[in-house]
Amino acid sequence: MAMNSSQDAADIILHSGHILSNPDVGEVMPHGMTIIKDHALIEVNVPWDPGIRANKVIDCTNCLIMPGMVNCHTHCGMGLLRGLADDMPLDTWLHRFIFPVENQWVKPEFVYLGCLVSMAEMVLNGITTCADGYYFMESAARAAITIGMRAVVAQGILDVPTPDVQDPARCLDRAMEFLERCTRHELIRPALFCHSPYLCSPATLTAAAETAKNHSLLLFCHVAETEDEVRSIRARYNASPVAHLLNLGILGENFVAVHCTHVDPAEMDMIAETQTKVVHCPESNMKLASGAAPIVQMLHRDICVGLGTDSAASNNDLDMMAEMRTAALLAKLVASDPAALDAPTVVRMATIQGARVLGMSDMVGSLEPGKRADVAVIDMTGMHLTPLYDTISHLVYCGRGSDVRDVIIDGQLVVRNREIQTVDQEEIKGRARETSREIKAGL
Amino acid sequence: MAMNSSQDAADIILHSGHILSNPDVGEVMPHGMTIIKDHALIEVNVPWDPGIRANKVIDCTNCLIMPGMVNCHTHCGMGLLRGLADDMPLDTWLHRFIFPVENQWVKPEFVYLGCLVSMAEMVLNGITTCADGYYFMESAARAAITIGMRAVVAQGILDVPTPDVQDPARCLDRAMEFLERCTRHELIRPALFCHSPYLCSPATLTAAAETAKNHSLLLFCHVAETEDEVRSIRARYNASPVAHLLNLGILGENFVAVHCTHVDPAEMDMIAETQTKVVHCPESNMKLASGAAPIVQMLHRDICVGLGTDSAASNNDLDMMAEMRTAALLAKLVASDPAALDAPTVVRMATIQGARVLGMSDMVGSLEPGKRADVAVIDMTGMHLTPLYDTISHLVYCGRGSDVRDVIIDGQLVVRNREIQTVDQEEIKGRARETSREIKAGL
Repeated sequence: MAMNSSQDAADIILHSGHILSNPDVGEVMPHGMTIIKDHALIEVNVPWDPGIRANKVIDCTNCLIMPGMVNCHTHCGMGLLRGLADDMPLDTWLHRFIFPVENQWVKPEFVYLGCLVSMAEMVLNGITTCADGYYFMESAARAAITIGMRAVVAQGILDVPTPDVQDPARCLDRAMEFLERCTRHELIRPALFCHSPYLCSPATLTAAAETAKNHSLLLFCHVAETEDEVRSIRARYNASPVAHLLNLGILGENFVAVHCTHVDPAEMDMIAETQTKVVHCPESNMKLASGAAPIVQMLHRDICVGLGTDSAASNNDLDMMAEMRTAALLAKLVASDPAALDAPTVVRMATIQGARVLGMSDMVGSLEPGKRADVAVIDMTGMHLTPLYDTISHLVYCGRGSDVRDVIIDGQLVVRNREIQTVDQEEIKGRARETSREIKAGL
Repeated sequence: MAMNSSQDAADIILHSGHILSNPDVGEVMPHGMTIIKDHALIEVNVPWDPGIRANKVIDCTNCLIMPGMVNCHTHCGMGLLRGLADDMPLDTWLHRFIFPVENQWVKPEFVYLGCLVSMAEMVLNGITTCADGYYFMESAARAAITIGMRAVVAQGILDVPTPDVQDPARCLDRAMEFLERCTRHELIRPALFCHSPYLCSPATLTAAAETAKNHSLLLFCHVAETEDEVRSIRARYNASPVAHLLNLGILGENFVAVHCTHVDPAEMDMIAETQTKVVHCPESNMKLASGAAPIVQMLHRDICVGLGTDSAASNNDLDMMAEMRTAALLAKLVASDPAALDAPTVVRMATIQGARVLGMSDMVGSLEPGKRADVAVIDMTGMHLTPLYDTISHLVYCGRGSDVRDVIIDGQLVVRNREIQTVDQEEIKGRARETSREIKAGL
């Protein structure tokens, strides 16, 4: 190892504490030393060697070192609409609040600021990668680079006028424009995001799928989120949403079906056979009363399921610790089985399975030499975490975003002692408050 | 007001920020000054007067001042069993883990330490009153006084051998002994807790109800928690659990039915007509896969429903902020209605309705002159709370226990800047860890 040479200091050394290096195995082990250099994990959990020099040495005593969490579905630009309108029927929420506010307000700078709010919250909660889908996604990429967060940025495609594209006929041109304009950066992966089979025509869906295929991109889509959607797609196409997408030839390993709240066994078989990926957003599904996705049955079919918070407008926080707990509790309730979706499974969904959903499991999702250094350090000493019989169980059933102490993304220390290192949090909050006052005044 | 005299300093003055004084109204107002003296609220939200002297002046800028939350159901002594056994069938959980460990370990000092852990966590989370039911409840009273927390301490009564009473024939004698021995203290209200209609015979239930009536005490009971319970009670008594209790003449305004997960409309009518109180424990009900209580239908019948966390062994944290969110999300899912159980309603359940369940709404549950000074001060500046359109909505959908900054109980500053003032947190944690190591070694 070059790390033995005194010439060549590591960037960061973590030592002490415990480590969950491979969520597929789920074992939490006493932690010696982990060495980070040039954005990567060089050594993971090797014996402590005081001779190795590093620019930063971080003592993780009483902490859990784990892979940074992967939030597979959110709309970061909606960060400025957090809690704007709650506890109302979906139609009122969309047509009285979200759509009019979006039409008036959503511009590139609005998306940039909303993304700063959402991404700052996410890194503070130990989320190191997110899959974001919204408008003006060049701004999302810019915000992710500013915060220092890894992001899949998926340009929204809809057959209705949007803040981004007034003429729906141009939505695919806009997607191409985004692909050309989106900054090339280690942290950023561009992608496409067709809103849904009810707001995208078969022609739009197939064209987007073809573009995604040609450019080796992920294609995201809200699928079977509500019963209304299922009814409407059946009425129009004589097929369920999943069957409709199968008929269009769109399902496949680069297709990410978000929600899948209302899928029957035959549709789950289609998802499994085509290796389509699924994102489960339990809190958003509950809050909007959409339903409960049959996660246990999907996992029985070896479908790759990740977890997503959805946006701050429908969750309303972006906290994967809370999302893990809700996922586990909801699955038990729905299955009438307290053993359903156990803690190790849900931690896998929040880390390595999420990375697989995003096609990034070669880079992130577990702590292994050669992978990118995306790490969360969790303080396990809170009164709500005492005593501690089982670390994984505590992470899911007692953990909070506020237990996250340090976060490293791509080798950069983005959060240290619960403070963001890359941006001025207070400045972002101040600008967000200012914008929210203007929005509120116009309602 | 005596407060105008310079002779007579207040104990604590809170100023600035915003206040939710009356959760029944739900209005959040700009806050002037609140004066606390001799355990009570002397003035609430009066104009700021710099002439008034106080021993402590607390600036609440950017905070929400609200009534301390009321946790209507927990088993504090189980704090030391937090996360001991998760993700398993109820039978395995009880018979392989909880019962054997309880039989070996649960003694007065164990209950005292478990209560310190649970109550320390609760006050840090802004909970100022709890209703606790377990064994050796003299120890629970002692712990509550040590922490400085208000508690209803309900002695467990079961027709099976328990750590407290080896001979079940003595369970009511033990309850009487507890009532005689329980420390008389401003913070403590003794009560009785019949485990359930399946672990307490009709004779035990009626005798306990009579004792409760004679001593003007609350009687708690787990009711209709699982489908198994409903089946078993029907088989034995040819009545549902609620009808069985009605037939025994036990339902009534001093009876607190915990869970009520499986109650039909006729049973809800019985609960409403008898003014029986109900405690909803959504996270415990989900985690143990018991079911979802029909809260919306109960509220339509004007049943008084409070919120409970249940114990750290089945939740696994004692966080009413999380419980509020889960209650709201679960109700929406079950009712297929995103407007069901809105944020103001759930905040009422966590405060004034909880106080009504416990028969203490003359003392706590809202901030009004003359009431006891039980107050939580919530820091509303977190990134996950930014921007802020609606404080009540943020409290429920984005708030965390860790946002609680200061807590005052009965006029005493129990938590200041997230640090407990009354006990040495680190010492309690250390003793809890030591005990948990011994328990684990013996499993």
